[in-house]
Amino acid sequence: MRLRNVKNKEEIMKDSIFLVNKPEKFLGNWSDVFGNKNPIQIEIGMGKGRFIIEKALKNPNINYIGIEKYDSVIVRALEKIPKDLKNLRLIRMNALDIDKIFYKEVDTIYLNFSDPWPKKRHASRRLTSPVFLEKYENVFTDCKKICQKTDNRLLFEYSIVNLSEAGYKIREISLDLHNSLIENNIMTEYEARFVEKGNKIYYLFAEK
Amino acid sequence: MRLRNVKNKEEIMKDSIFLVNKPEKFLGNWSDVFGNKNPIQIEIGMGKGRFIIEKALKNPNINYIGIEKYDSVIVRALEKIPKDLKNLRLIRMNALDIDKIFYKEVDTIYLNFSDPWPKKRHASRRLTSPVFLEKYENVFTDCKKICQKTDNRLLFEYSIVNLSEAGYKIREISLDLHNSLIENNIMTEYEARFVEKGNKIYYLFAEK
Repeated sequence: MRLRNVKNKEEIMKDSIFLVNKPEKFLGNWSDVFGNKNPIQIEIGMGKGRFIIEKALKNPNINYIGIEKYDSVIVRALEKIPKDLKNLRLIRMNALDIDKIFYKEVDTIYLNFSDPWPKKRHASRRLTSPVFLEKYENVFTDCKKICQKTDNRLLFEYSIVNLSEAGYKIREISLDLHNSLIENNIMTEYEARFVEKGNKIYYLFAEK
Repeated sequence: MRLRNVKNKEEIMKDSIFLVNKPEKFLGNWSDVFGNKNPIQIEIGMGKGRFIIEKALKNPNINYIGIEKYDSVIVRALEKIPKDLKNLRLIRMNALDIDKIFYKEVDTIYLNFSDPWPKKRHASRRLTSPVFLEKYENVFTDCKKICQKTDNRLLFEYSIVNLSEAGYKIREISLDLHNSLIENNIMTEYEARFVEKGNKIYYLFAEK
């Protein structure tokens, strides 16, 4: 997700206590950043942050880290975070570096409306490709959980096959999340728009 | 699937070389019925037989067995089978008895448009419930393959979770089979009607 430029972007980012610079220096030690041993959950591609901010507000005993590639998007999220929120940090980085930032310390990865990279030659860029699933192996603790939401059928099918091949079990699935019995869903910005249009949202929770 | 009564039903069934009576006596020895060691694939709930007859015609080196509960449906299938088809047999039986009929000799189970048993208290009757998956364990050879098609979303979601839990890997999946790259699909009678109405067909191929 790219957005048009935000004024004072550099300043907002420099001053924020929520944005972690040089995240690689915390490799294996993210508990120190939060000052507690609570479980750590990350969202790769958090966009403007609605999902992860709401997650953090609702679950004070879980630490959340939102990851996003683009400055202009990170800034929008930074502007929204309540000043006293203790259990949330953001990182501006490319997802490909994920295994340089985390080492056996993440409990859950959220993949919400990730880029589907529809062309076959770009398949390895999808966040559930074998390339990424391999990276996640060392990012996760022994308990590996992936939650995915998307409105892209082909990405979802691709994810099921790859997660299954990598040894994950599909614990929960809905092919129409907003007409299902699954509760406590937190919507992303994209999702709210999709649902309004009447699009179906696919959801899965996989565990290994 | 129940159909209105067919005249001469008893006679057609008695005379058919394709219908196996007392199937339990072949437990573990279905190769003898076919007189060769070719792989054996079964369809549970074959309905009027379009799918399994076409499968048998297209794959002479695979032996097929169609299973159906109702006389009136079996008869319709029997009437359609080309007289010289060597690699197809039918059994009239309740799927619950499947593990009394086959022992470590089935290579693939096809579940096409099975009864979704939508009520929760009937869930164990679904052909991908833990009850049935447990029965299939001894029906299958070491190589266990299940192919499912359905237009019922909840049955499909239920199947993915149960298959995954039982250790199957989802090798192929489509949430819209007739708009997918999956080739060589053979339609069932139901499927042809559903597709005509524009309904989406869910498909999976799982392996253990």
